[in-house]
Amino acid sequence: MSIQEIALNESNVQKFINEKVKSIASQVQDGLAINALSGGVDSSVVTMLGYQALGDRLKTYFINNGIMREGEPERIVNLFKKLSVQVEIVDAQEQFFRALKGITDPEEKREAIAQTFYKDVFGRLVRESQSKHLLQGTILTDVDETVAGIKRQHNVFEQLGIDPQETFGYKIIEPLVQLRKDGVRKLAEALGLPESVYKRIPFPGPALAARVIGEVTAERIKVVRFATAITEEVLASTKAFQYLAILHQDRVTGMRDGKRDFGLQIEIRCWDSVDARVAQPTKLPYEALESLARRITTEVPGVVSVTYNITSKPPSTIEAV
Amino acid sequence: MSIQEIALNESNVQKFINEKVKSIASQVQDGLAINALSGGVDSSVVTMLGYQALGDRLKTYFINNGIMREGEPERIVNLFKKLSVQVEIVDAQEQFFRALKGITDPEEKREAIAQTFYKDVFGRLVRESQSKHLLQGTILTDVDETVAGIKRQHNVFEQLGIDPQETFGYKIIEPLVQLRKDGVRKLAEALGLPESVYKRIPFPGPALAARVIGEVTAERIKVVRFATAITEEVLASTKAFQYLAILHQDRVTGMRDGKRDFGLQIEIRCWDSVDARVAQPTKLPYEALESLARRITTEVPGVVSVTYNITSKPPSTIEAV
Repeated sequence: MSIQEIALNESNVQKFINEKVKSIASQVQDGLAINALSGGVDSSVVTMLGYQALGDRLKTYFINNGIMREGEPERIVNLFKKLSVQVEIVDAQEQFFRALKGITDPEEKREAIAQTFYKDVFGRLVRESQSKHLLQGTILTDVDETVAGIKRQHNVFEQLGIDPQETFGYKIIEPLVQLRKDGVRKLAEALGLPESVYKRIPFPGPALAARVIGEVTAERIKVVRFATAITEEVLASTKAFQYLAILHQDRVTGMRDGKRDFGLQIEIRCWDSVDARVAQPTKLPYEALESLARRITTEVPGVVSVTYNITSKPPSTIEAV
Repeated sequence: MSIQEIALNESNVQKFINEKVKSIASQVQDGLAINALSGGVDSSVVTMLGYQALGDRLKTYFINNGIMREGEPERIVNLFKKLSVQVEIVDAQEQFFRALKGITDPEEKREAIAQTFYKDVFGRLVRESQSKHLLQGTILTDVDETVAGIKRQHNVFEQLGIDPQETFGYKIIEPLVQLRKDGVRKLAEALGLPESVYKRIPFPGPALAARVIGEVTAERIKVVRFATAITEEVLASTKAFQYLAILHQDRVTGMRDGKRDFGLQIEIRCWDSVDARVAQPTKLPYEALESLARRITTEVPGVVSVTYNITSKPPSTIEAV
């Protein structure tokens, strides 16, 4: 199955919006639709398209899966409140951590998150809402990578040949599936979303679980969440495409107060890229690298070592898990 | 127990040599002495001091433990042959890998190597040689770190309060125990050793086993040996104090030929330091980092990711294991 790519520019972005709004309205008809907002540019754009098409007949949820970044649920809800879109926070932290317990394989992790998200949390919401339509922010890069077997994205069942109608009891609408990330950003701007959304760096579907090598526990998420907050603060002023912190499972020897400390290692990645298909490590000034290492080893308990990724994609991928 | 540090310079280095040669000669008297040469500056200097004191009554062995760098045994033997010192290679590879099997804890690794080295391999050599004296290249930094509990060096039993006479049946002579690394280098030059010895970067006692996180197997040593050879080649022209490649146990997602490859990660460390007590990551140009990443991911089978350490010592240590 091949999907036709669309490149958005000033001359066709409004036409694209009109078509997608009309298409969503005609698919949902007088029914209800539901969508999950993660706060990333993809799901934010989908929320706005759905809201324009359906108004209050779109129910938008922010699923707090426990693996989001610091302060994320509140930030997102407030941001959309200003745009008249009501977002409901669903606390599903325990369910996700229970599903992730003992799992170390990246694919099994993604699978556990997808299953918990669709079957347990979102499935229940959909059944309760009587909604038959789910709006999703799948983009073309997700499809490419899933088809290539590089990653299992949790939002591309349809492209994998799995019928979501049969599997989970609802139908998926993917208005962004012909776009790359740069197209989605143009769309966000045209839809009146603030810069903090459309200039925000990409963030993976499995959230901070994609940033933990080995088992994902509440405690380990806390470590990587803290390191992520520092990394995003220090690198906010760069022009980089994406930057992230990864908690390794390996422990390395360090020293604290003159004594041996067998501690944690955080890996920083910062990428130059246009569309995530290929990417190069950003040539960060050493002052920034020093600041990252010093702050993370000082502020995040247990961390004795910080590294910087120097490998391009390919053979690396953007995320480590 | 406090050891008096000696700072060597042009005016006192010859005096130091004369004293140590005399001291070794008087301790060994008309007996035999034995020493293990790793090829590092410490053991090379000890070999020269011992040779000057004892001539052919010093038996020098190169223990091939299977965890040395590429081509190391032959290189060392040839180098010392030119200085009239005969070095015997002992193949103990199987014994070391057997002892390391299944061990992942850094301290247990060091312990297994130490036990195999002293009790099995070297103990046997000493007993067969009828030698009662062992010359060792322990320096003051080794003692400091062992006393502080940061690392267990395999050559500081005496400082740990263990009596080597009773434990292993021989007596240890440590002529360098009052020196730091810079002092040993001055000594090496004064003793007529070539630049390739005294300007060579430091290398740890547990050799490449200190560069493997997790279990040390022949296969994993092969990977880190290859990465080490590339790292030393690429960074040879730097003025750095030390540079090294570490094989992680964590696997990370990568891509090869458009397909997912759950592969290996190598961490590079390159240090600016005077004496290893404190150290800062070298501000390598990004061209060097790119070259390292490209060569290692291209030439070393299975590696999809390379990182660069950006943490100072402390809280990092020079080595990771």
